[in-house]
Amino acid sequence: MSSIQSQREAFYGRADTQSLAPLWTRLKSLVPEAPVPACVAHQWRYEDVRPYVLESAEHISAKEAERRVLILENPGLHGSSQITNSLYAGLQLIMPGEVAPAHRHTQSALRFIIEGSGAYTAVDGEKTLMEPGDFVITPSWTFHHHGNETNAPMVWLDGLDIPLVALFNSTFREDYPAEEAPVTRPAGDALARYGSGLLPVGYQAGSLNSPVFNYPYARTREALHALTRGSEPDAHAGYLMRYVNPVDGGWAMPTMSTTIRLLPKGFATQGYRSSDSAVFVVVEGRGRLQMGDERFELAPHDVVVVPGWTKYTLHASDDLVLFSYSDRVAQEKLGFFREQRL
Amino acid sequence: MSSIQSQREAFYGRADTQSLAPLWTRLKSLVPEAPVPACVAHQWRYEDVRPYVLESAEHISAKEAERRVLILENPGLHGSSQITNSLYAGLQLIMPGEVAPAHRHTQSALRFIIEGSGAYTAVDGEKTLMEPGDFVITPSWTFHHHGNETNAPMVWLDGLDIPLVALFNSTFREDYPAEEAPVTRPAGDALARYGSGLLPVGYQAGSLNSPVFNYPYARTREALHALTRGSEPDAHAGYLMRYVNPVDGGWAMPTMSTTIRLLPKGFATQGYRSSDSAVFVVVEGRGRLQMGDERFELAPHDVVVVPGWTKYTLHASDDLVLFSYSDRVAQEKLGFFREQRL
Amino acid sequence: MSSIQSQREAFYGRADTQSLAPLWTRLKSLVPEAPVPACVAHQWRYEDVRPYVLESAEHISAKEAERRVLILENPGLHGSSQITNSLYAGLQLIMPGEVAPAHRHTQSALRFIIEGSGAYTAVDGEKTLMEPGDFVITPSWTFHHHGNETNAPMVWLDGLDIPLVALFNSTFREDYPAEEAPVTRPAGDALARYGSGLLPVGYQAGSLNSPVFNYPYARTREALHALTRGSEPDAHAGYLMRYVNPVDGGWAMPTMSTTIRLLPKGFATQGYRSSDSAVFVVVEGRGRLQMGDERFELAPHDVVVVPGWTKYTLHASDDLVLFSYSDRVAQEKLGFFREQRL
Amino acid sequence: MSSIQSQREAFYGRADTQSLAPLWTRLKSLVPEAPVPACVAHQWRYEDVRPYVLESAEHISAKEAERRVLILENPGLHGSSQITNSLYAGLQLIMPGEVAPAHRHTQSALRFIIEGSGAYTAVDGEKTLMEPGDFVITPSWTFHHHGNETNAPMVWLDGLDIPLVALFNSTFREDYPAEEAPVTRPAGDALARYGSGLLPVGYQAGSLNSPVFNYPYARTREALHALTRGSEPDAHAGYLMRYVNPVDGGWAMPTMSTTIRLLPKGFATQGYRSSDSAVFVVVEGRGRLQMGDERFELAPHDVVVVPGWTKYTLHASDDLVLFSYSDRVAQEKLGFFREQRL
Repeated sequence: MSSIQSQREAFYGRADTQSLAPLWTRLKSLVPEAPVPACVAHQWRYEDVRPYVLESAEHISAKEAERRVLILENPGLHGSSQITNSLYAGLQLIMPGEVAPAHRHTQSALRFIIEGSGAYTAVDGEKTLMEPGDFVITPSWTFHHHGNETNAPMVWLDGLDIPLVALFNSTFREDYPAEEAPVTRPAGDALARYGSGLLPVGYQAGSLNSPVFNYPYARTREALHALTRGSEPDAHAGYLMRYVNPVDGGWAMPTMSTTIRLLPKGFATQGYRSSDSAVFVVVEGRGRLQMGDERFELAPHDVVVVPGWTKYTLHASDDLVLFSYSDRVAQEKLGFFREQRL
Repeated sequence: MSSIQSQREAFYGRADTQSLAPLWTRLKSLVPEAPVPACVAHQWRYEDVRPYVLESAEHISAKEAERRVLILENPGLHGSSQITNSLYAGLQLIMPGEVAPAHRHTQSALRFIIEGSGAYTAVDGEKTLMEPGDFVITPSWTFHHHGNETNAPMVWLDGLDIPLVALFNSTFREDYPAEEAPVTRPAGDALARYGSGLLPVGYQAGSLNSPVFNYPYARTREALHALTRGSEPDAHAGYLMRYVNPVDGGWAMPTMSTTIRLLPKGFATQGYRSSDSAVFVVVEGRGRLQMGDERFELAPHDVVVVPGWTKYTLHASDDLVLFSYSDRVAQEKLGFFREQRL
Repeated sequence: MSSIQSQREAFYGRADTQSLAPLWTRLKSLVPEAPVPACVAHQWRYEDVRPYVLESAEHISAKEAERRVLILENPGLHGSSQITNSLYAGLQLIMPGEVAPAHRHTQSALRFIIEGSGAYTAVDGEKTLMEPGDFVITPSWTFHHHGNETNAPMVWLDGLDIPLVALFNSTFREDYPAEEAPVTRPAGDALARYGSGLLPVGYQAGSLNSPVFNYPYARTREALHALTRGSEPDAHAGYLMRYVNPVDGGWAMPTMSTTIRLLPKGFATQGYRSSDSAVFVVVEGRGRLQMGDERFELAPHDVVVVPGWTKYTLHASDDLVLFSYSDRVAQEKLGFFREQRL
Repeated sequence: MSSIQSQREAFYGRADTQSLAPLWTRLKSLVPEAPVPACVAHQWRYEDVRPYVLESAEHISAKEAERRVLILENPGLHGSSQITNSLYAGLQLIMPGEVAPAHRHTQSALRFIIEGSGAYTAVDGEKTLMEPGDFVITPSWTFHHHGNETNAPMVWLDGLDIPLVALFNSTFREDYPAEEAPVTRPAGDALARYGSGLLPVGYQAGSLNSPVFNYPYARTREALHALTRGSEPDAHAGYLMRYVNPVDGGWAMPTMSTTIRLLPKGFATQGYRSSDSAVFVVVEGRGRLQMGDERFELAPHDVVVVPGWTKYTLHASDDLVLFSYSDRVAQEKLGFFREQRL
C-alpha cells in the first residue's frame, strides 16, 4: 500500500469514529451508470405451484395464518419476501367456510383473481364477490377481511408495496377486534357509485386509492375486445390499458401501477424496456415472453417477473390477455420513470 | 337641478367625449348586492310542445334547417335565444331518413334523448346510437352530424353554451365539405376505451371535454338504483350524481355541469338554492318542483328552468329521475359558485 | 311572401306563444364563423384623460362616490361601462386625506398603479403601500378600502370582471359597517409569507386568487431586465411574463390574466392575434401599437384596447414596458382560447 | 418439534425449491404495527467534523474525488452511506481554484451552504454563486459542476435521494465529456425568470424540480423575520416555511421536502412527530433539540437526524433558524405520510 493510500486509510479510520465516510471510494457504486439487476427474471408456472398452494391448507388454517399465502419470492432476492426490488407478491388460498380475519395496514394491496368463483373480500364496509380476472383493491389503512362461502377453494394473487413502505419506515398495522369487520353497504355499491361514469356531487376522496375497489373482468374483457375493432395494437405493447382512479384519472393505486393488455393471436411486440420491474399474470391464452436468451412459455395463471430496464418482447399464440403490476406510478411521481421503445 | 348637480352633469357630458364615464352613478347597478333575476322560472310541458316539434318537420327539412330545432326561449329573455342567463336549450327533431349535415363550432353541445330509439350522432369519427335518457356530448370544435335510419321520429334536447361563447366573443364555426363526416371507428369504441374503468396507457386528452361521448341511460339508471340500496338520499338533493370526465374526474364538459338524480317515491327535498340557473328535464316519473308560490307539476320529458339563487324544493310522486344542466362548472372555475342549504 | 314562407311565419307566431323559436332563422348569427367585433380598438392618452381624472375631485369626494372612478368606456359599447366585451376598466383617484370606504363583492379587482406614491390599499387585514407599476389584487369577496395619507393625489387603473359576473348573475356585494375594515397584519406580510419562494407548511388557499396581493414593480422590473441578459425576446411578444399565483403556478387571478412585457429599444414584434380582447397600459417608454391601418403612438400611462382576434404588432422606440390584462385565463379554463402567430 | 411443525418445515423446504415461502411466519415482521427504528438519532457538531472536512483536501483533490465529500453516515446504518432510512447526506469541500467535474444522474441533489462565500455551482447552463444559508437544487439528470474561484474553502451540505433511487433501481449516471459543462445564461437568470412572482407565458416545466435552483438566504431570512411581525409561531413548529416550486406550488423537489424555520429566542415547541426521518441543519442561533431522554445542544452548522415517528421538541436560546430535509414529499405522494401533534 502506498504511503498516500495508507494515509488515506488512516484518515478513513479516524473519520469513521465521527460517523464520517469518504464518498469518493463509493461514488460509482452508490450512483451507478445504469440499473444494476437486483431481482432476476423468473416464471412461476401455475401448474407447478398450484399443488403447493392447495397443500398449504393442510398445514394451516386461514384463521391461524391470518393470511394463508405462499410468497412468490424472487430467486435473486432469497429471504427478502420480494418478487421485485420494490414489490411483494403471493398466492392466497381461502377454503370453503374460512374467513381470513379483519385487519388494516399502511401497505396497499391488490388482488388479481386466479381461480374459484364467488368468495368475497370485504373492504371498508362492502363485500365484493370475486371472479377470475377481477382486479380488487384494498386501499391503505382500510379494514378488510376475506371469506369463502362457496364450495370450492379460491386462489388469488396478492400484490403489495411492502418493500416501499419498509424503505420509508412508515408502517402501521391494526387488527380489528372481531374476526369480521361490519358490512354496511350492499355488494356493487362502490362500482355503481364511482365506476359508472358518474360521481356523487360533492364527493371528496378519502385516500389516494380508487374508490372503485373491484374492476370486474367481465367489463374489462369487453372493453379490450372492443378496442380490437376500432384501432391497431400498439407495436410495443398490444392493446394496453391502465386501471384508472375515477376521482382524478390517475392510476388506480398510489404505489402500484396496474395494467391489462390483449395481444391478438399471432401478434408479436417489438422490443421494449422501462425502469420499473414488472409482474405479469397470464389471464387468458398462451404465448411467449422473451428477454434476450431467456424465453418463457406462457399459460393461463402463470406469473412472470421482468426486471427493470430489461428488454423484452411478447408473442401471442392465442388471443393473449396479461395483467401486470409494477412501481411505475411511484417512479413517475418521483421523477424516476424511463422507458425505451426499440 | 342643483348647481352641484348641473356642474356634475356638465362634467359627465364633457367626459363622455373622451369615452369616460362616472362610476359613482352606476356602481350599485353594476355591482348589485345579490343576483338580479334575468331569466324567469318556466316550464315547457312536453305534451304541449311535442306537437310543435313534430309540426316543424312539415315546414322545413333537417338539411335545409341544418339543425331543425325549436329553441326553448326563456319568457324573461324574449328574443335572446336563451333558456337562462348563460345557456341555450332547444328540442331537435330528426325524421326517418334525414341527416343533419356535419359542422363544428367552438360551442359545446349536450344532447339529452327524449324520444325515439336508435338514431345516431356521429362525433369525431364515431357513430353512437341514441336511446331515451342517454346523455351525449359534442365537444367543442369536433365535426358532428346526426342521422335517423330508423322508422320513427327522434327528439332530443340540445343544451349549448352559446351565450358564454358570445360573451367571450371567441366563436368559430366551420361546415364540413360533405353532408356527413367520415366514420372511422365502430359504435361503442369511446365508451370501451375511456369509460370502462380503464384508459389507454399514455393517453393525452385532446380537449377539456370527456372522451366518453355517450353516457347510456341503461348504465346510469342501474347506478342510480344501486345507490338507493346502499345509502340514504341527500336531504337537499336526493340521490344526486354528476357525469364525470374519466380523464381527470372533473365535470364531463368544461362549460356545462350535467347531473342526474333519483328521488324515491314520496321523497321531498328541503330547500336549496345556488348561484347557477339550472335546466331540469324529467327522465322518468312524476313529481313537483316548487319555488316559493310557483309550483310546477312534473311529467316525463317536461323541461323546467330554475333561475339562479332561487330557493326550490322537489317532491316525488313516483320514483322520479331528473337530468339537469347549468353553468356551475364555469362558475366554480371562475370562483363565482355559491350554494345554500336551507 | 311565398305560401311556404307565410306558413312558416304563422308557425313561428304560434310557437312563440309557447316560448318556442326556430333555430334555423338564427343559427348563423348565434354561432358565427369567427369573432364578431364588439368592442373597438381605442386609445386613452393619459395626457388627455388626466385632467378629467383630477377634475373629478372637484365634483365628488371619495367617500360620497364610494369609489371615485372614471370608467374607460369602449366607444363601441357606449353605455355598457365596459372596456371590452367581457371586462371593465376605470381610473381611480384618491386625494390626500381621503378614504374610499370598505366593502366587498364577488367581482375581483386588479389595480395597476399609474401615478402618486405611497397611498394604500387595505385587503383582508393588510395594508399595502402602492408605487407606480405595482400590480395589486383585490380578490373576490374580501373587504377592502383605499386611503391616501400622502400629500399628493394617487391614480391607478382598476380592472374588474364585472361583465363576467353579470353574465353568470352570481353577484354579491356587502358594505363594511365602518369606513375602514380592521388592519391586523403589517405591510409586506403577504409578500413575505407567500411571495418569497416559500409557503407556510400546511397552507390552504382560501380563494382562487393569489395570496400575494401586491407584486411590486421594483421586483418585476428587475426580473424583466434580467431576462434581457439571458435570452432573446420572443418574436411575437417580446420578453413576456405572466403574474403567477404561487399556490398553484397558475394565473394570479381566476378571471383576468395579467402580464407584463419588455420590448427592448428598436424591437418590433411580428403579427399576433388571440381570442381574448386585451387592455394594455404603458408602464415605461414609448412605442407604437398597430392594428391594420390603425396606429397608436404609445406614451407612459396610455391605455389601449386591442379587440379579440385582431392582428397587431408592437414597436418599441425606447425600452418599452407594457402591462396587460384580458379574460384569457377564463377562456383557457372554458376551452375557448385560441391564438395565432403570424 | 411437534409433528405438525415438522410437517410444516418440510413443506417450507419443498416450497422453497419453487421460490415459494410461507407468509404466515413472516407477516408480523413484514407488516409491523408501527415504524421500526432503522436510523438512530445523531448529531454531528460542526466544530467536531469541520477539521475532518478540511483535512480531506490533504488526501485527495476535488478532481480526483469527482466529489470530495465526507458522508454523514448514520451510526445505526453503518456501511450504508445513509443518514436516514431513505436519504443521503454529506459535507462537500471545494478549495480555491478547484473544479468538481461535470456529470449528471437520476439522483436529485440539494446543497445547503455552510461556510465560504462566492464559489459557484453550474446547473443546466447557469452558474449560481453560493452564500451561507442558500438552498441550491441540482435537479435529476441535469449536468452540473462546482467551482471555487474565491480565496477560501467552501463547504456545503449535500442531500441526495440515493437510497430511494436504489430501491427503485432506476439509476442512470453520465459524465460530461469535459470538466466543465458550458455556461450559457447569466447568473440570476433562473431566479429572475421563475422566482419573482412571474413566469414566462407558455413555460412548460422540463422536470418535477423547481426551475429556481438557488433560493438565496438573504430573501429567505427577510421573509422569516417578516412573519414574526404578522403572526404567532405555530406551537409545534415555530415559523415554519417550505421551499416551493413556482410552477405548481408544490415542494421544490420531487423526492425531498425542504423547509426552513425560525424559532424566536426563548420559544419552545410542543411535542411533534411524523413518519418521515428528518435531517436538521442549524443555520443561525443556538438552542436544543430533545427526543425523550436524548438532548442535543445546537450550535451553528450542526447537523442532527431525527428518526421518523420519534417525538421531539425544540427550544431556542437565541433566534434559532433551522433548515431541514426529509422524504415527506415522497411519502405524501405515495399516501404514507402521518404526523401527530402532541
